[in-house]
Amino acid sequence: MTTTSTSDPQPDAAQQTPSKAQDSTTAASSPSSVTPTPGISPVAEQLRRTVDGAWWELRERARTELAPEDLLGEPGLPVEEQRERVLRQLLRVAEQGYGRVGFPTEYGGTYNYGASCVLFEMQALGDLSLLVKTGVQFGLFGGAVMRLGTERHFATYLEDIMTCKLLGCFAMTEVGHGSNVQRLETTAVYDDATQEIVLDSPTESSVKTYIGNAARDGRMAVVFAQLRTAEGEHGVHAILVPIRDAEGTPLPGVTIGDNGDKAGLPGVDNGTLAFHGVRVPKANLLNAFGDIDDNGRYVSDIESSNRRFFTMLGTLVRGRVCVGGGSGAAAKKALAIALRYGSVRRQFEAPGQEEETVVLDYLAHQRKLLPRLAKSYALSFAQNSVTELLQELHGTPQVDGQERDENAGRELETRVAGLKATTTWHAVDTIQVCREACGGAGYLADNQLGQMRADVDVFATFEGDNTVLMQLVAKGLLTEFAEVWGGLAGPELVSKLSKQVAGGVVERTTGRAGIQRLVDLAKGRDNESAMDDHGWQLSMFEQRADHALETLGMRLRKANKENAFQLFNNAQDHVLFAARTHIDRVILEEAQAAYTEMTGGPAKELLGRTLTLYALDSIEQDKAWFIEHGRLNTTRSRLVTATINELCGELRGHVTDLVDALGIPDELITAPIAQR
Amino acid sequence: MTTTSTSDPQPDAAQQTPSKAQDSTTAASSPSSVTPTPGISPVAEQLRRTVDGAWWELRERARTELAPEDLLGEPGLPVEEQRERVLRQLLRVAEQGYGRVGFPTEYGGTYNYGASCVLFEMQALGDLSLLVKTGVQFGLFGGAVMRLGTERHFATYLEDIMTCKLLGCFAMTEVGHGSNVQRLETTAVYDDATQEIVLDSPTESSVKTYIGNAARDGRMAVVFAQLRTAEGEHGVHAILVPIRDAEGTPLPGVTIGDNGDKAGLPGVDNGTLAFHGVRVPKANLLNAFGDIDDNGRYVSDIESSNRRFFTMLGTLVRGRVCVGGGSGAAAKKALAIALRYGSVRRQFEAPGQEEETVVLDYLAHQRKLLPRLAKSYALSFAQNSVTELLQELHGTPQVDGQERDENAGRELETRVAGLKATTTWHAVDTIQVCREACGGAGYLADNQLGQMRADVDVFATFEGDNTVLMQLVAKGLLTEFAEVWGGLAGPELVSKLSKQVAGGVVERTTGRAGIQRLVDLAKGRDNESAMDDHGWQLSMFEQRADHALETLGMRLRKANKENAFQLFNNAQDHVLFAARTHIDRVILEEAQAAYTEMTGGPAKELLGRTLTLYALDSIEQDKAWFIEHGRLNTTRSRLVTATINELCGELRGHVTDLVDALGIPDELITAPIAQR
Repeated sequence: MTTTSTSDPQPDAAQQTPSKAQDSTTAASSPSSVTPTPGISPVAEQLRRTVDGAWWELRERARTELAPEDLLGEPGLPVEEQRERVLRQLLRVAEQGYGRVGFPTEYGGTYNYGASCVLFEMQALGDLSLLVKTGVQFGLFGGAVMRLGTERHFATYLEDIMTCKLLGCFAMTEVGHGSNVQRLETTAVYDDATQEIVLDSPTESSVKTYIGNAARDGRMAVVFAQLRTAEGEHGVHAILVPIRDAEGTPLPGVTIGDNGDKAGLPGVDNGTLAFHGVRVPKANLLNAFGDIDDNGRYVSDIESSNRRFFTMLGTLVRGRVCVGGGSGAAAKKALAIALRYGSVRRQFEAPGQEEETVVLDYLAHQRKLLPRLAKSYALSFAQNSVTELLQELHGTPQVDGQERDENAGRELETRVAGLKATTTWHAVDTIQVCREACGGAGYLADNQLGQMRADVDVFATFEGDNTVLMQLVAKGLLTEFAEVWGGLAGPELVSKLSKQVAGGVVERTTGRAGIQRLVDLAKGRDNESAMDDHGWQLSMFEQRADHALETLGMRLRKANKENAFQLFNNAQDHVLFAARTHIDRVILEEAQAAYTEMTGGPAKELLGRTLTLYALDSIEQDKAWFIEHGRLNTTRSRLVTATINELCGELRGHVTDLVDALGIPDELITAPIAQR
Repeated sequence: MTTTSTSDPQPDAAQQTPSKAQDSTTAASSPSSVTPTPGISPVAEQLRRTVDGAWWELRERARTELAPEDLLGEPGLPVEEQRERVLRQLLRVAEQGYGRVGFPTEYGGTYNYGASCVLFEMQALGDLSLLVKTGVQFGLFGGAVMRLGTERHFATYLEDIMTCKLLGCFAMTEVGHGSNVQRLETTAVYDDATQEIVLDSPTESSVKTYIGNAARDGRMAVVFAQLRTAEGEHGVHAILVPIRDAEGTPLPGVTIGDNGDKAGLPGVDNGTLAFHGVRVPKANLLNAFGDIDDNGRYVSDIESSNRRFFTMLGTLVRGRVCVGGGSGAAAKKALAIALRYGSVRRQFEAPGQEEETVVLDYLAHQRKLLPRLAKSYALSFAQNSVTELLQELHGTPQVDGQERDENAGRELETRVAGLKATTTWHAVDTIQVCREACGGAGYLADNQLGQMRADVDVFATFEGDNTVLMQLVAKGLLTEFAEVWGGLAGPELVSKLSKQVAGGVVERTTGRAGIQRLVDLAKGRDNESAMDDHGWQLSMFEQRADHALETLGMRLRKANKENAFQLFNNAQDHVLFAARTHIDRVILEEAQAAYTEMTGGPAKELLGRTLTLYALDSIEQDKAWFIEHGRLNTTRSRLVTATINELCGELRGHVTDLVDALGIPDELITAPIAQR
């Protein structure tokens, strides 16, 4: 990353689609074409190329093209100055053309849906206020217009959105409804006399809140509201509503509030929006999934308003992909800081030694940081995989009449929900541990960890509350075999369920050659396999996930209208366990698949050990479950712990490579404690 | 708590010593004398009286006397204004006489050492920047003068310290040494010619850093430095060094820096101090443990400089008692906010229900908050207990020649170290979970959680890094039977160790009638006891702690000069486990002891169930250990989880009482989401 940047470079790399999705004549598919980075070992270089995944070239360009001053924040400025700074940087991002990534080429975009997620990850290595502001403008606001709108909106708004001439909000959440958005209270009533839609906030709890871009900069909002025509209610729809005039004065009927100071993200102007008889032309309805025709009648291809709503939400899945990826990137940066500092910081002399011991040589310090580093690696591959899947399913503009693969879409949504929850929690936990691992130094703003920690906090609850998302994962899995719940008796059910699990949902999650073979080879020798046997690890993850899901299914099969809530509620810890273990399995599978595809050598070997650490750490955390269910005997369960300790010692010697391979530009690590 | 306060009330309650340490003619010993608090049930009232412990009267007075405007912060102000606000509030605290608590009566104090810790807890219900600033002035700076100084310092400085006429710093930590303070590099060289001590910061890493009161307000510092006389080195000593003149200009030779923005505690002016040939009179040496006589010779009652150093540090143990108590209070406040909000917030309708479900009715929500609430209760009793022990051992001025009980002192230090680590980690974790449990609302500054979370973060690493403290706990335990490590063979050693464990350290931790009896009754029927059998719970905690310590001792007995570091390092996870389980045991024992002493009735019953939830939650977290070591069969291990879920459901119905009994004045819970 250079400290100056040429003006207005078109981000050509952003046009790159993943190499595997294209013909392989591009340089993208050949690791040997990577320009060696000064000061980085060939092992780190190769590992980084693997972690970078399909869009590695975009990542490389972002590393050199994005100037630090365009990305980094300035902790300590008062909120108003933070907001000004972030707006300035947002405009600069747009000026550089990065706002165009992810929009259709026919409207000036450099259409590549997956690339927009990868770019988001790279921007997350800078200030997270800027990241979220960017996400609100191009991802949430722009994305909603693109996905929920049609031609009439594209032509009118997209260019202005990409260039930030029009700044906008994504006004979904209300005071009363964050998770259960189907119950939003804002009303959008169609007035056929004027062919206008009238927006109202009928209650205090219907006021839109936490809306980014609302408190200060937004001029327009995509407002989610209950649409009503003369015929009746049609459920939640999105409507484009101007909220301020060109000078920034709120328009008549629009009441704007400021959410004020927050626990983090000081540069994002979150605010409240309330509407009182605000009229917009009918054409402002984002009408991809439902419209009002010339006769004032509501029309939609999707009859069920429930299904229509979830289809609409489904098209917005990219937001969760980005939030997961962004938080994962922040966690990596925190690890880089803590690991670099831990590699030079000395404290306490060993007996008989004059010089004090490097803190990362302590097992306790290793155990704090290295399993989290290993998990960061594993998560990277899962993130790359959902990004590719997103590109595959959503990456091309929908052609009228062309059916999307609904099952694949649901599977993507389920996986993204779980991965978003897992990664954001990982980030909150990891950045915190990194802060503590740096002691008082970690608490100083200069060392970057504090702001990151405060900013990433909310990632665990926005774009879907993590706990709610994990329940969604479980529900998604359960839905797949809901039909067998009926009149089946015990053993028969188990067999059905198992088959369903084996052949249905879970099968699809593997989807990679080699993985199932590894598992099959390992099966039946649970208590003999070596700890570093990837097949055995996968098999353990598989058994944990399958058993959790099967028993959950059995437990819930007694559900009927009267007891369903109580039954589901009583099983909530089981539900969350099933979801988590499913996602953990997806993560390990994707990571092992990427490992399998690597060319042999020291980089592959290093990744292999790193992923073993991730796998064993996860097994150790569920040790009790594995023992209770006869998947580990107590001898082996202790061996798991011993092996983790050994691996920590081994990987400690490779920390420089493992940090370098994360691919964080040195210029973005400004922390004085973490300089090379 | 009233919103106005009379001016200059002498905090008489602060003079109260714990009722049990005094004659019992005071009202303190009779719960019936508690003035009923409006809006609080008798059950909550009685429970609160129990949780309040020995200094309940001081707590009650603090609740009514401390005005919210004197305690609450103003999130969002720029750092300079935060610092001004906190200084203003600090002066107000002093004006009200609260600075006198904990200082000897003959110098104007209201000498009660334990009371000063309890007051600290109560102040922690307000702004934590103010709390830390107060702690720096009266606790660290004032406490060091009082504990490490002698008559000549008391007469000169204590009145000015208590009234804040003299603001001071506790300058221990250096850039290079936070945990290993025995290796501080600042030098204090005695110049016999002028009878002065000359202070120098010889290296970059010797610069004092993170020093509260240094960046802006301090006029003097207690500087920890390596004392050297013509005879040689005498180890770390504390010296009073003026750093600014009356106008606030740094004195010649003193370089002062500002640590700038931090992840939290914006109102505390942390800074750096460096010294270049700064001369102070010999009398500025805080000479309770070592002095320079009229002939320029170093004199001390304690010959070993190592032992002298740790004795000095030991007298400062109150700092850790306060940090633990303060963070525990903050966690309670966060729980009160999240539980109140959870009791009214609704989201998602149950099938067939029109109204949405109160989120605290979801098991997943209960499991987030209620075990942490239970742990907060348990920790309260352990905190009360160390505060009483502190009062007992340090609460009276040391009379010359009177030996302190060294063993009891070590035991106190060990317990305080472990409790500080456990409580601060609990606070960091709990406030975070509370934030998430409140969703986007929890992220708004108005709802108080964000600032608390950011502020309490550093409690985990200041006043002793938690991981280092936990190792100190283990070392303390191991030291107790170090003598048996020698030439003993396996089985003989085990027997010796067990006896040692049973009769030595651990015995002393129980120290309460009834507890051992309960355990003995439960022994031998591990797999039959009811889950709510307190004796069985205690026995499980005891077995876990004893086994961890015994096996650790065996593992380390092979230590010799060559392998000691490696052996200890390889066992660090075991070391930390032994420490944690020891402290967990202390916590449960203290809590069960307080429960046992309660008069029967619904309040006692409620506390009993709450403590059972704490115990089972801890057992569940170590399930794997209990199964591996044959202390739980898998049937019972599942029963543990099932019982936790049941208890969550039961306690959910008592949340109002459980929150009210925490005794947080309504006026300090300003969060709009948590109003009654």
